[in-house]
Amino acid sequence: MTDRIARQLAFLTEADKLKSVLRATTLCHDARFENSGEHSWHIALYALVMAEHAVTPVNIDRVIKMLLIHDLVEIDAGDNPIHGNHDPVEMAAVEQAAADRLFGMLPDDQGRELRALWEEFEAAQTDDAVFAKSLDRVQPLIANLESGGRSWIDYDVTRDQVETRVGTKVQRGAPAIWAAIKTRIDTWFAENR
Amino acid sequence: MTDRIARQLAFLTEADKLKSVLRATTLCHDARFENSGEHSWHIALYALVMAEHAVTPVNIDRVIKMLLIHDLVEIDAGDNPIHGNHDPVEMAAVEQAAADRLFGMLPDDQGRELRALWEEFEAAQTDDAVFAKSLDRVQPLIANLESGGRSWIDYDVTRDQVETRVGTKVQRGAPAIWAAIKTRIDTWFAENR
Repeated sequence: MTDRIARQLAFLTEADKLKSVLRATTLCHDARFENSGEHSWHIALYALVMAEHAVTPVNIDRVIKMLLIHDLVEIDAGDNPIHGNHDPVEMAAVEQAAADRLFGMLPDDQGRELRALWEEFEAAQTDDAVFAKSLDRVQPLIANLESGGRSWIDYDVTRDQVETRVGTKVQRGAPAIWAAIKTRIDTWFAENR
Repeated sequence: MTDRIARQLAFLTEADKLKSVLRATTLCHDARFENSGEHSWHIALYALVMAEHAVTPVNIDRVIKMLLIHDLVEIDAGDNPIHGNHDPVEMAAVEQAAADRLFGMLPDDQGRELRALWEEFEAAQTDDAVFAKSLDRVQPLIANLESGGRSWIDYDVTRDQVETRVGTKVQRGAPAIWAAIKTRIDTWFAENR
């Protein structure tokens, strides 16, 4: 038992490093960049509040667990901004290696279970994963709307790119949320770009 | 529906402010102070990993939800460090007013549900709340052990105070975790105080 707890605490201490991985978006009310730890909390809270808007019925408890671990691989792989340039094949390989290392710190049964949940999120095929992915896209959208479009300006993003890279994924899992914010996005781009 | 989503998004945007509330503990691997948003993520992850060590069987999905919202009132009330001085009666009144305002931003049914979950956490009487509270005490303990006892030094804390203010609460909900880390705490205080 003590060895089991020691492995779990080592994993949780390593996970602390996610608080030092910076994202491309800023906070809603502060110009500093968001980190992936607080982002993970925020979208888990999004799931708790927005569950009813999933396009298909989901198991929200699984969605929340998925969101709590979805970015852990960034401890080794870093954050890849939605509007940044990166090689998806190379990125996937780096993230797989990160998952090997991080989930491998846990007791074997638990590591396998959480790894499978992360793989499910990445594959974005199940109802739970599709909804989780849409929340992961909605939250930075709102942060952009609240912070003057900071990452849209930094990455020179067009309205069409928001549609392709973000909107389609939000609509896939949570069309009602997209419908509720689309006008705000249209207005921002009409006024600012 | 649109009004319902608007209220939910306003709440989630207000919740973003929790990322700007600083706590007394630092990160494990960085000298900066932890904020209450990333702390909330970290202890929800603690719950996911440590569920098996609850002293009584718990509904870990409820524990995780409780931990996601447990600190929201700090947006108005601020963080009250475990080893700091504050008037508990006055603090409770400020936190109740904060809960009125914050949970009141949500649609009524949802606001009532999350408010009840927060009240349950605060009361620390149910099995779920007792375990949630013990995780809320364990995580800063580990942060102290990993960061050279930063908040123990800043607040001039004794080993006995750690026992009274932290250890008893950890032991109440998760005695196996306390047993696994007690020696590290003893060693730190023997060497540093």
